[in-house]
Formats: sequence, C-alpha cells, structure tokens
Amino acid sequence: MRDAYVVGAGQTDFGSFPDESYRSLFATAVDRTLASADGLCRGDVDEAVVGTLGVGGRQLGLSGPAVTEFAGLSVPTTRVENACAASGYAVRNAVQAVKSGMADVVLAGGYEVMTDASDDATKYWLGVSGETEWERLTGTTFAGTYAQMARAYLDEYDDATVDDLSRAAVKNHANASENPHAQLRFECSLDDATDAATVADPLTLYHCCPTTDGAAAVLVVSEDVAEDHSTLDAARVAGVGAASDRVGLFERDTYTAIPASERAAESAYEMADRGPDDVDFAEVHDCFAIAELLAYEDLGFCERGDAPALLRDGVTERDGRLPVNVSGGLKAKGHPIGATGAGQVAELWKQLTGRAGDRQLDGPEVGLAHNVGGSGGAAVVTILEGDADREGKR
Amino acid sequence: MRDAYVVGAGQTDFGSFPDESYRSLFATAVDRTLASADGLCRGDVDEAVVGTLGVGGRQLGLSGPAVTEFAGLSVPTTRVENACAASGYAVRNAVQAVKSGMADVVLAGGYEVMTDASDDATKYWLGVSGETEWERLTGTTFAGTYAQMARAYLDEYDDATVDDLSRAAVKNHANASENPHAQLRFECSLDDATDAATVADPLTLYHCCPTTDGAAAVLVVSEDVAEDHSTLDAARVAGVGAASDRVGLFERDTYTAIPASERAAESAYEMADRGPDDVDFAEVHDCFAIAELLAYEDLGFCERGDAPALLRDGVTERDGRLPVNVSGGLKAKGHPIGATGAGQVAELWKQLTGRAGDRQLDGPEVGLAHNVGGSGGAAVVTILEGDADREGKR
Repeated sequence: MRDAYVVGAGQTDFGSFPDESYRSLFATAVDRTLASADGLCRGDVDEAVVGTLGVGGRQLGLSGPAVTEFAGLSVPTTRVENACAASGYAVRNAVQAVKSGMADVVLAGGYEVMTDASDDATKYWLGVSGETEWERLTGTTFAGTYAQMARAYLDEYDDATVDDLSRAAVKNHANASENPHAQLRFECSLDDATDAATVADPLTLYHCCPTTDGAAAVLVVSEDVAEDHSTLDAARVAGVGAASDRVGLFERDTYTAIPASERAAESAYEMADRGPDDVDFAEVHDCFAIAELLAYEDLGFCERGDAPALLRDGVTERDGRLPVNVSGGLKAKGHPIGATGAGQVAELWKQLTGRAGDRQLDGPEVGLAHNVGGSGGAAVVTILEGDADREGKR
Repeated sequence: MRDAYVVGAGQTDFGSFPDESYRSLFATAVDRTLASADGLCRGDVDEAVVGTLGVGGRQLGLSGPAVTEFAGLSVPTTRVENACAASGYAVRNAVQAVKSGMADVVLAGGYEVMTDASDDATKYWLGVSGETEWERLTGTTFAGTYAQMARAYLDEYDDATVDDLSRAAVKNHANASENPHAQLRFECSLDDATDAATVADPLTLYHCCPTTDGAAAVLVVSEDVAEDHSTLDAARVAGVGAASDRVGLFERDTYTAIPASERAAESAYEMADRGPDDVDFAEVHDCFAIAELLAYEDLGFCERGDAPALLRDGVTERDGRLPVNVSGGLKAKGHPIGATGAGQVAELWKQLTGRAGDRQLDGPEVGLAHNVGGSGGAAVVTILEGDADREGKR
C-alpha cells in the first residue's frame, strides 16, 4: 500500500456570494489549490472527486463533471454525497485512488451554494440528510436534532451547562476573526452566546453554524509524485477512517455520542498507528456547539462527560495544548455543506506547511480532521502528518 | 497494484413495485449478492459504495448509509452519483478501494425508485442530469437530447435509417424475453418499433427505455480473498476506465459520438491490455436506441457509421459473433438509473460464471460493461475476465 500525500489546498472565502455560481466558486478553489502546489499544473491531474449535497438542486445530476469541466479539468470525475461529510469522503476516495495505483494526482474538493435557497436550505435541503419519514417529514430540522443531543447531554452530565456550549462558540468566533476566509469574522462574549435568541432549545443562534456559500479542494498525490517534485510541500495522509450508522438520530442507541465518529476515529488512528495523544491540533465538525463537545469525546481527546472541562480550561483554545477549530470551525468559518470536509483538510495542510497566516500554530506535526454527515449517519476522520524536512523545501 | 475480482452479484427484478421501498429493493439485491458469493457472509464486507440519482428525493442526503444500514451492512458507505452512470462508478470506486489495500471486500451497488415519481421522473428528476440552464430549464428532456443525436446520425450517414434504430430495440426486446429479471419481457417486430408513437422525432416509444424501479449489486474482493475461498467463482476486473465531459450536449463538438465513452473505453482497454476484438460480449448503455449504435462505434466494435451494418448482419444478436445486451439492455431489461451500472456488471459476472440461465452464452471469457451518465457527461467502462479454472470450482 503506497503512501498518499496532500501537496496543495485552496478555498474560496466562505460567506454569501450572490454574484458567484457553484461553478465559479469551485473553479476558484481549484485555481488556488493548483497555485499552491508548486511544480504541478492542471494537466497533471488524473482524476477528481467532488463532494456536494446539491442544495438548491440547480445541477443535482452530474454535479461533479459540471464543476470540474468548468474549472478546466476534463478528467474522470466522481461526485460523492454523504451529506455534510461529502468532501471528507471525497478526500478519502482520492486517497484510495492514489493508493490503488490507478491515479497519481487526484483533486478532491467540494462546494455548496446555500444562501439563495433561503428558508428552504434548512427545512428541505438540509432536511433531506435527516431520516425522511420520521424526521424531515415530521418537521424536524437539524437544529432540532442537535438540540435533542444537547438536551440529552445536559441531562446526563449534571455539571454541564449551556455556558459550556457557548464556550465552544466564543472560542470559534475568536478564531474566525483571524481567518480571512471565514464567514463570521467577529468575536462574541459568553453572554452574547448564551443570551441570544433560542433557535431550538437549548441551542441559541450563536450555537448554530450559518448558511454558507463556498468551495474548497486539496490535491492528493502518490509518494512518487511527492518525491519527484522537490518544490512541493507534502503532508502525509497517515490515516483515514470512515463509518456509517442509522440515518435517524432516534434509530441510534445514544444521543450523547456519535458512534460513527468513534468508529471512524478508531479506524484512522489504527491506520496511522497513532492515538489521540499524538494529535497536535484538530478541525472538528461543530455544526452546532454540542457537536464540538461530542467530538472531543468521540475522538478520544477526553473521557465521556469531560468535554466542558476542556473548554473551561482553555485546552482547545488557539494557545492551548490541543487547539481545535483554529479556522473558526463550521460555527464561524462557515459550513458550505459539500465544501466543509475538504476545507478542514485544507486547513490541516496549511497549518502543517506554515501557510496559515495570522492563525498559524507553532510547528504542529500531526493534524486531525473530523467530518460528520447529518446527525451521525456518516463520519470520516483524516490524520495528516507534516514533513519534517519541509523547512528545507521552502 | 493488486488485482480485484468480482465474486458475487445480485439484483431485484426490474419493473414497477409500488409495494417495495428503495430500502427493501436494495436489501434484496444485497441478500442475493451475498447468497451468490459462496463462502463470504455479511460480516466479511469492509465497505460499500452505493450509486443513486435520488429520483423522487425521498432520501437525497446520506442515501448510501440509508440503504446499507437497512440491509444490515453497518460499514463505511459512500454514495456516488454520476447520473445514470452512478453505480458503474460505484463499481470503479470499489475496485480502487480493493486495489488500495484499504479494503478486502467491497459491496458496490445501486438503486432507484422511479415509477412513483410519474411525470416528474422525466421532466425534473432525469432532467437534473442534463445541463440546467440551457437544457432542463428550456424544456429539453433526455428523449429530446438523444433525439437530436439520432437526427444528427441519420443526417450524417445517408444509409442509416429509423429501421436501424428499431433493430436495436427488436433485438433487446427478444433478449429480455429470456431474462426473468427484465421489465419488458415481450418481443416486438421491426414494424411495431418503427411505427410506434413518436416520443421525440425520430425516436418512437420502442426506441426509449422504460421508467423502472430496481436495485443491483456486485461484490468486489482482493486477490487474497478470492484465492482463500475456493468456493468463490471469481471474474477478474481486467480493466476499468472512466471519463467526464461537458454536461450539455450542445457544449460538445459532436452529436454523433459520445467522446467520454471513447475515452473511458481507451482507458479500460489499456488497463486490461485488451482491445475491442478481445471482447466476447457486452452490456452497453442503450437508454435510447441511438445510444446503442453510438456505443458500438465509441467502444471500437466497428468503424464510424458502420453500427447499422452490425445490427443488419446480426453480429450483436444473442447468437452473433459479439452479443450485445443479452440481458435486454436498458431498453427492455429496464433502467432504474442508479442500479443500471451495477446491473450490467452483475450480468457480466453471471455470464462469465455460467449463471445466466436461459440466456447463457457459450463459454464467454471477456465481457465489457458500458455505462453513460446523462447524454455523455460521464462514462465508465468495465472489462471482466472469467477464470479459466472455474469449471473446477463448481
């Protein structure tokens, strides 16, 4: 099994872009990704994997080729869809394509245009990733689903409070204020977050990610390509794990964990021969604040019920022992469904190769990305390792 | 690059099944696939790849895990969508997963429930695989798109006639009459086909595939697994090639060829170290009769303009030199979008392992499946080789 490396990444700003199309956004992400991979060009790309949910439905079928062709990449293109984990899975497929020997250079990316779907984005287009008969058609939105998880968590752990949810939001807003690509580049206070309007009790507006347009991509290459181009900054894909589960929250045994995340992480750690203690920083799937707390526990960053303590102690702040969502996370960087997973891996690569600008961490060596589909029907975890020699390459 | 093998396949009947759901159909295909792989069981499956367009939209998001979990397969599941080529690409992804070393046993399948979407199936749900702004939203259906290709073909080749289109339909109806899984199990005459009501000139009703519910799957395994289980009937995946193109027919240079099919075939032949002359039988993407003629030429079975001669001379009949669509093809076996590609590969495996019942060919060794997305925005070609020792295994 030959190694795969990430050697480039790019994304658009995340936000509301009424003057852009899904194709122009994806093309920008591709341009930036190729520009970041010094020594490779468009013609070197063997194939592409594109993640999108297809919010708005303007190009639901062949939505992969529709964007790669526009971006000037006339290569075999597979669209994958695993709800909000679409492009996390796209990256995994790209790793498989490279490791299979059937491709040497694979572009994995994703996109979503959501702001023009307005109210329908939450009620219908996101709802389709919930269980249809008993969730979407009964009126349950994802805010409602994650609110049930938050309520269960607060019930199960007596000392957990709504303020703990707010702490995740406050941290991620602060981080986003340093990220030029982020959608919500402003800080908020604990009181702002806790006292904001209720969206689905106990979740307030500040506990929910925004509706976002955007695109992101990474370039995954074989060991040979990484070695043949001394100009490339390569981060090794040490591990990638995925897992599925019942789509409906009500179909699962627990509301206070996401079992698919646990199993995806186990699988990624095993492949990487690493454990949670080896992780220097992480991008986790905080579509709602409770999701970040569950992620800490599902990924093994702490014991069950201890996520609030990690937040209170500042462990996951940018200057903490284990920075989480330095990009701002889904909460404040934004959550353009199909682009999110690739955007997380792009952030890992930027941090590991010293390209993260004002939010650059101090020499991290191992980064983890965690991407969830729906309320936990799918999850994928990717672990990247920086190249110890990289200083010499720049 | 280790070899991958198909060692099992199964499908539901194709037709209209108002008492079934997308999940129950897929579960039946999985059950039959596992039952056909003597020596492997549900617990041996490492991951799954599921193709569906999502016609009807009942479970658009996480539509992969939604069916695998229901089928008792709680494994990492990726949904792929490349319009009508969805599960042809799912098979390709399964091959990559096995060759990558990240999985040993991968189930690749697909499903679609279309008959309850009625009129919307053609106008909206299939339309989404056409180009949105200039095809779907201006009222062009796929019958209209392929009619333009048929008209262009009849204009370009003076001796080609509407009867030549009908010949493909007559052949495939005759073949379907021997296939217990087929939707349209009745023969038709040349006059029936040519004189039937016009759907989109020059295409008549008999030149168009039906609207279909159904599911199909195949089991792809590593060389080690194939060798370790002497009870398995293995067909080697000799080659698999894919290509993308502009989604809109009007965006491409030719109306009388599908360039993505040509490029996918070239790639598959190269990987298999085979050429068109090595192919003993094929399942090709005849969503409309003209598509079968173009396939003959795109796949190299004859020169440009010579497809009508192949049909007139009976070359591609079941008892001809190169039988095509012995299953009945999309035309008469049926075309449940997401299930079609996997169903084609299932047919190859059945023929190569002597399981094709009344339609069994005489000892074929090399089979080719050709699956197209939309009007040619994507294509995938898979070449399977039978195991010369297989007689000894049964």
